[in-house]
Amino acid sequence: MAAGYHATGVTARASFELFVRELPATRGYLVAAGLEQAISYLETWRCTPDEIAYLRTVPALHGADAGFFDDYLPRLRFTGDVWAMPEGTPVFAGEPILRVTAPLGEAQLVETALLATVLFQTAVASKAARVTEAAGTRPVIEFGGRRAHGMEAAMYAARAACLAGCRATSNVDAGYRYGVTVSGTMAHSWVMAHPDELTAFSKYLAVHGAQSTLVIDTYDSIDAARLIVGAGLRPGGVRLDSGDLVDLSRDVRGILDAGGLTDTQILVSGDLDEHKVAALVSSGAPIDGFGVGTALSTSSDAPSLSGVYKLVEIERADTMTPVMKLSVGKRTCPAAKQVWRVFDSTDSGDSGKAVRDVVELAGEAGPADGAPLLTCVVRRGRRVQPGRPIDEIRSACQAAVARLPDGVRQHRDARVYPVILGAGLERLAAGVASALSTRGDG
Amino acid sequence: MAAGYHATGVTARASFELFVRELPATRGYLVAAGLEQAISYLETWRCTPDEIAYLRTVPALHGADAGFFDDYLPRLRFTGDVWAMPEGTPVFAGEPILRVTAPLGEAQLVETALLATVLFQTAVASKAARVTEAAGTRPVIEFGGRRAHGMEAAMYAARAACLAGCRATSNVDAGYRYGVTVSGTMAHSWVMAHPDELTAFSKYLAVHGAQSTLVIDTYDSIDAARLIVGAGLRPGGVRLDSGDLVDLSRDVRGILDAGGLTDTQILVSGDLDEHKVAALVSSGAPIDGFGVGTALSTSSDAPSLSGVYKLVEIERADTMTPVMKLSVGKRTCPAAKQVWRVFDSTDSGDSGKAVRDVVELAGEAGPADGAPLLTCVVRRGRRVQPGRPIDEIRSACQAAVARLPDGVRQHRDARVYPVILGAGLERLAAGVASALSTRGDG
Repeated sequence: MAAGYHATGVTARASFELFVRELPATRGYLVAAGLEQAISYLETWRCTPDEIAYLRTVPALHGADAGFFDDYLPRLRFTGDVWAMPEGTPVFAGEPILRVTAPLGEAQLVETALLATVLFQTAVASKAARVTEAAGTRPVIEFGGRRAHGMEAAMYAARAACLAGCRATSNVDAGYRYGVTVSGTMAHSWVMAHPDELTAFSKYLAVHGAQSTLVIDTYDSIDAARLIVGAGLRPGGVRLDSGDLVDLSRDVRGILDAGGLTDTQILVSGDLDEHKVAALVSSGAPIDGFGVGTALSTSSDAPSLSGVYKLVEIERADTMTPVMKLSVGKRTCPAAKQVWRVFDSTDSGDSGKAVRDVVELAGEAGPADGAPLLTCVVRRGRRVQPGRPIDEIRSACQAAVARLPDGVRQHRDARVYPVILGAGLERLAAGVASALSTRGDG
Repeated sequence: MAAGYHATGVTARASFELFVRELPATRGYLVAAGLEQAISYLETWRCTPDEIAYLRTVPALHGADAGFFDDYLPRLRFTGDVWAMPEGTPVFAGEPILRVTAPLGEAQLVETALLATVLFQTAVASKAARVTEAAGTRPVIEFGGRRAHGMEAAMYAARAACLAGCRATSNVDAGYRYGVTVSGTMAHSWVMAHPDELTAFSKYLAVHGAQSTLVIDTYDSIDAARLIVGAGLRPGGVRLDSGDLVDLSRDVRGILDAGGLTDTQILVSGDLDEHKVAALVSSGAPIDGFGVGTALSTSSDAPSLSGVYKLVEIERADTMTPVMKLSVGKRTCPAAKQVWRVFDSTDSGDSGKAVRDVVELAGEAGPADGAPLLTCVVRRGRRVQPGRPIDEIRSACQAAVARLPDGVRQHRDARVYPVILGAGLERLAAGVASALSTRGDG
């Protein structure tokens, strides 16, 4: 399509909005994430000579003119503007998470990368907000790298999980790249690689420090707990990864306490998700922290979001003109938009609950009691704000999630949060749809 | 753990096997994939100076000795051997897809990357085998890049989908990297970017060739079909992406045929999976091809596999010694293994159906009528065979899937394919388990 726009001389600027059509059935809200990687992608976006040489061989591009390969692609850079919700912001169906305004070819070519980057991290952050809320004050460590969709997905998942509430990740590369805290415990193979469990435990503590966490279920968790106490080891923690975690944690806690190891924490892992974590917490089991893997790194119950990137306006005769599609069940809403979150004003300060969002034309004034969510993050191809530390995003995210109505946050049968169209947008959308249906060109 | 092995002077060689514990409820078989990227990873695996500088700052490594950072990590290369199933091979629960034998630290450090790389492509290839079998002779194009878990996942998904049956992908970067065929159609934004649909269609065909495919549901699919016929356009295909695809394809076919466009193909897309494709095929709707996105690129109904990478043997006093874990519900099977597929010998030639797999110790002779599935693919850190073209893998995959019993291949309530332990392995496993339970060290 970029070749087509080049061939037909289309250089008009256009705006595309990235939004999720419908929330997954198991989500009452989403948490925006991935913006940082999206911006990095746009800032460094290039076509290499090798890539251009390949494109010359693609049959669908045999009709493209020489200037497309010789001039347009080698010079291609992202020169547009981006408005977006800050990472960690709760977001709902139909609300633009980001808006790109750029020459049509540029804005079109970045579609797939922006969707894949933003939707995946948003899916993981949304899951992490649920899991960590279920854990309450107990830390949740992201453990899911091995089941992620490749190594890049593993790192994105670690980052997104941490910005939405996880305290750390076992993914060391994510620590290197994003500055998130890394944390891990030994694997079963450490135990199996040593001639016996006591040797394995003693050597591990000698190397990694007496406060390290030992995995105790390789052979038998109860025997291992007795072994630790009997040998006078004082690990910082023990991890249970199999069996009945309620019963085992109680039995292990009893053995540790009886041996004077009252400070040794009990961590649990093994196919956990928000529902299992909530059940463990409400059981009163003596569990101090959770390792959660696959459920986070693949957002297992909602592994994709129905996210799209849709043209909403295009320059015609130097004026931005709103456009929409009318496809059955996939109608879009025209024009560049702003999202306003309205809070209960009877609460003073920053603690009032969110009561509704209003989606309005970007140019219009929003509701007087609302706060706009989209800000300009890229101007003429350059980032306008430095990236924020993950810890800062996490704090903001947790505060924003806490201000959502309780019903919207509940883990089953969440209430639908009200998102309404502003009067200006509603009027415009009706006008564009009516013009398209009656002009008889389709 | 690698720091621990270094500190305690452990240089023993060890073998780890990568396998899936249980098939997802919705899969009767899996298709191995991702081996090519796993080998590339091992061949190019390095710790950069920046990464090592970061590792020095990680609290869990404060106890590591100077030699670990100064000598071990900078020189780290993968020097081991890998045995694996060729990509495109049908594989079942408990069967090693690959086995790594290397010094313990090396073999351990590559765990997460191997799992994330192999499991994801295996999940996608397994889904693609189902979707393409449902489509029969009609081509399926992989359309799922935008919903994949990041851009790397998008490319891996395109590759895995194509090696297991898809005819092409819309992911141009996957074409560049892996040589898979790329194919796409215009997006709705092309139509919306032009002042009217006829202009959009005409310009697209002028640039991309008269045989291109036009997306016709931006405003109204029936009107668009009439517009094409009325204007005398003769596109290679039209694509429907919304609405009732059975009814619309019949109505559009009628309009095209009446206008003499009997050669114009009808492609359909829009949240398709193997069940929807099968229903469309059995409806007899005049559909010539399918674009399938999210279901493929995320393996949406089974977005993760319960894959693990487990230590199965370790060198002790110069002898490889089998090991296992006894964790409740997560017991492993010791020793290096080979998988033999036994075919019905009443059929002559290469057409007999597979009747069972036998997992046996790697050194033992397998069943006389069986074919071994694991071959050596990396020796002393170097690939021993060149990578195979995707088209060749696809042909081999489709032939191998066709030899699975029909019940195992059915899309709902698949029969369980028999995988049995060979006599040598069974004897050994019982012996190791018994020794571990009675020695009283755990």
